[in-house]
Amino acid sequence: MPRTHATLPRLYVEPDLGAGAQLTLGKEQSLYLAAVLRKTVGDEVVLFNGRDGAWRSALISDSKKSVQLELREQIAPQTPVSDLWYGFAPLKSERLDYVIQKAVEMGVGTIQPVITQRTQVSRLKHERLVANAIEAAEQCEVLSVPVVEPELTLERLLDGWPSGRVLILADEGAASSSPVATLSALKGRPVGVLIGPEGGFLDAERAKLTALPYAVPISLGPRILRADTAAVAALAVIQAIIGDWR
Amino acid sequence: MPRTHATLPRLYVEPDLGAGAQLTLGKEQSLYLAAVLRKTVGDEVVLFNGRDGAWRSALISDSKKSVQLELREQIAPQTPVSDLWYGFAPLKSERLDYVIQKAVEMGVGTIQPVITQRTQVSRLKHERLVANAIEAAEQCEVLSVPVVEPELTLERLLDGWPSGRVLILADEGAASSSPVATLSALKGRPVGVLIGPEGGFLDAERAKLTALPYAVPISLGPRILRADTAAVAALAVIQAIIGDWR
Repeated sequence: MPRTHATLPRLYVEPDLGAGAQLTLGKEQSLYLAAVLRKTVGDEVVLFNGRDGAWRSALISDSKKSVQLELREQIAPQTPVSDLWYGFAPLKSERLDYVIQKAVEMGVGTIQPVITQRTQVSRLKHERLVANAIEAAEQCEVLSVPVVEPELTLERLLDGWPSGRVLILADEGAASSSPVATLSALKGRPVGVLIGPEGGFLDAERAKLTALPYAVPISLGPRILRADTAAVAALAVIQAIIGDWR
Repeated sequence: MPRTHATLPRLYVEPDLGAGAQLTLGKEQSLYLAAVLRKTVGDEVVLFNGRDGAWRSALISDSKKSVQLELREQIAPQTPVSDLWYGFAPLKSERLDYVIQKAVEMGVGTIQPVITQRTQVSRLKHERLVANAIEAAEQCEVLSVPVVEPELTLERLLDGWPSGRVLILADEGAASSSPVATLSALKGRPVGVLIGPEGGFLDAERAKLTALPYAVPISLGPRILRADTAAVAALAVIQAIIGDWR
């Protein structure tokens, strides 16, 4: 993205985006732009919708209740939606925002909360997670918002696991060998990664997971990692070796 | 580490550790064990000092002012001190704890705060950073505490950079190629990694850094990463490819 656009606010919107198109924002986004950021007629923002790339747009009305924007120019083409599936066992709710944010920064396409026997939180506020994902996408300038799925138990997740997709497991028990070789062998295949809960999976769950024919355990090194560190570390090595860092 | 020791508190201490040795803890650690954790005579803790591995130890006195411990058995040999140097531009102080914690989890040996032109915080409380590092080491079960250096300006850091050590730069401008090849070529060499401030280095600083003969820029992918995400991501790929994940 050209540097001159680096400081423009970015907003995720639903409508189609094209040159000269006009759209009216809802109450929340209007209040944010007009009252919080104090944008006025002529000020610019960047819009994206996950389909049409990123568009430089200007305010044509700065009403706090309904800001109107006119699209001027596409500044980035649409990037492909990420195929990377990311499952995690939810932490205490005050760290959920953070986990979602990091997943978006690391370029996942699907975020799946998984309830395990040790998971400390369930009945998540799905709307809140979606809002977190949108905000994170706006801030790290990705051009699509990952899909946040409703929570599933580990059992139901595995029952419905699509054949053909590999499931990478960050497993404390995996031999501490180079994940480079293990991951490189997966090049070109659809993958998912599952990060377990704080304290790890229970032995029975771990045994069940590692026995799955589509499971690929990798080690994340010799130290104990908190779940949010493990998530970024696992996603980093996956994206670097077989993902979109290449 | 055997699972039975997984839930014992771990404390970093200074004295030499050996079978049958006895030591008396200072006020802070005594209060923590005896009053906060309510440990009593016979309860066990794990001690480490960065030299003698990890020792299972039992309380022989549970006075809140001076807990006494007797060492029973070494449960892990000393691991080599990490040679990995990690420099970062400090964030606002409420996130410093987090940055230090993540660096320790990721196995660095030296933590160097670097003041750049864009850095938002200076005159860090060095003692606090050291305390953070000790706490993080205790919690993630590493057997040494990384050295936390006093802050240096970027200019002074580069003036004193030891010849022979490579400096990996997480550079937004680096061509998005596989860091696997770039890092693999550094196998066996002493390395450091420098993570820039939120918003990146200023152009003049970046130009100076990338021109250094010992600098190796790597890309951390096509998205904008917050500095703390970039730190974990960079350390993960370094440790996975040429570090101690192997």
